[in-house]
Amino acid sequence: MLKGDERLDYLLAEELRIIQSPTVFSFSLDAVLLARFAYMPIQKGNVIDLCSGNGVIPLFLSKRTKGKITGVEIQERLYDMAVRSVQYNHLDQQIEMIHGDIKDMPKRLGHGKFDAVTCNPPYFLTGEKDERNENEHLAIARHEILCTLEDAISVSSQLVRQGGKVAFVHRPGRLLDIVTVMRKYRLEPKRIQLVYPKVGKEANILLVEAIKGGSPDLKVLAPMFVYNDNNEYTEEMKEILYGENEGKAEVSDRYVGTKKL
Amino acid sequence: MLKGDERLDYLLAEELRIIQSPTVFSFSLDAVLLARFAYMPIQKGNVIDLCSGNGVIPLFLSKRTKGKITGVEIQERLYDMAVRSVQYNHLDQQIEMIHGDIKDMPKRLGHGKFDAVTCNPPYFLTGEKDERNENEHLAIARHEILCTLEDAISVSSQLVRQGGKVAFVHRPGRLLDIVTVMRKYRLEPKRIQLVYPKVGKEANILLVEAIKGGSPDLKVLAPMFVYNDNNEYTEEMKEILYGENEGKAEVSDRYVGTKKL
Repeated sequence: MLKGDERLDYLLAEELRIIQSPTVFSFSLDAVLLARFAYMPIQKGNVIDLCSGNGVIPLFLSKRTKGKITGVEIQERLYDMAVRSVQYNHLDQQIEMIHGDIKDMPKRLGHGKFDAVTCNPPYFLTGEKDERNENEHLAIARHEILCTLEDAISVSSQLVRQGGKVAFVHRPGRLLDIVTVMRKYRLEPKRIQLVYPKVGKEANILLVEAIKGGSPDLKVLAPMFVYNDNNEYTEEMKEILYGENEGKAEVSDRYVGTKKL
Repeated sequence: MLKGDERLDYLLAEELRIIQSPTVFSFSLDAVLLARFAYMPIQKGNVIDLCSGNGVIPLFLSKRTKGKITGVEIQERLYDMAVRSVQYNHLDQQIEMIHGDIKDMPKRLGHGKFDAVTCNPPYFLTGEKDERNENEHLAIARHEILCTLEDAISVSSQLVRQGGKVAFVHRPGRLLDIVTVMRKYRLEPKRIQLVYPKVGKEANILLVEAIKGGSPDLKVLAPMFVYNDNNEYTEEMKEILYGENEGKAEVSDRYVGTKKL
């Protein structure tokens, strides 16, 4: 089932496994936080995750909603990893992965059909080719090569229903671009949460949720801190990453446990 | 020297006094934080504070710059309090208070003549008359009756030099309006700091600093917390409010000590 240097990692706080590869795609803390931050319809509904990578966000979201979850990924290699992870976790009935360009999705899936949209888009502007990661998989996942921030926001706005919610994770440095572009596409930012590596440091992760056609009224949620003064995860972060029962699975030095099968 | 119900309060962390009145104007924590947050030229330069109220921000800034400080206040009663406080502290040579409408200042003082602008504007939209504070002094200071957010930002942009800095304090709910309007007037937001009443609560004070003609690159500074879990000021806040020597002046249940003379 695993190909090349792929691993089958635990999503620790949940009883899920995910296929990852250091040279192709490994999910980040950002995805974990977005999957927790985003509004989800609990009993039913339609949710779509754009720029899904190896499907980490759809997998996490399956624990928060009984609704249907669609994931869209443009890179076939990552799409293929996501499909196998969905199968491994027996989530085929709930999660559908689509291999395609998010820009084609409104035409393919219809306008205003989703209750919630999530997106962990490429963070970095395209820049000169030699500044980019030479690994094409990582470059596409991290740079705005095939999908700009405006593409992702525009598509989200088309896919979500009036009153539905759109949640993004990004770098705080792009806050102004995100909120400006969201408003351009009638997505009104309503909740922002900033994540700081530790007390006294600048924020390095931004979570934003907007409502399609909402009225202006922004809340800035309580801040989150990743590490304490001893460079250990904060209690809050341990809870998010490992769940309540600490040590229920083996933990690597990253935020996901790894277990080669 | 004091009129009516005015008091001569300490600005605790500094050796300054300020005339206040509960029925006319008392400064808030927001002003203290803005005066600390804003960039100041240290040895020389020109600084202007808009919507100065009783002059609290110019008074604080006098401890951070040797430059010339101008304060502008439209309400004669508050302007008069500010002038008397400046005199009491023997700061006449450094601080000039102007009684007037900020919208007239670019014509009166010239365009691009200031290195830094600070503003703690009225926070609340005008709304229906019966929702407003019936006290006209407080209503004008708190509601956008004589000065809208866009007025304050537009005037700031006209007064500041290219590359100069403009710092505002406001409610987090207006973050999007502030950054949108700042960009409209070529003020690029560069630093944001959020202040939370305590850990786990939503932010309730927003500090933003922009550079005239700056390039996009926003930093979200480390968060500040006002109270700890025991509802006492945090160490950080005590330092800001009272300075290093705690208890050097009597402290009321608000953040300024009061001493009736």
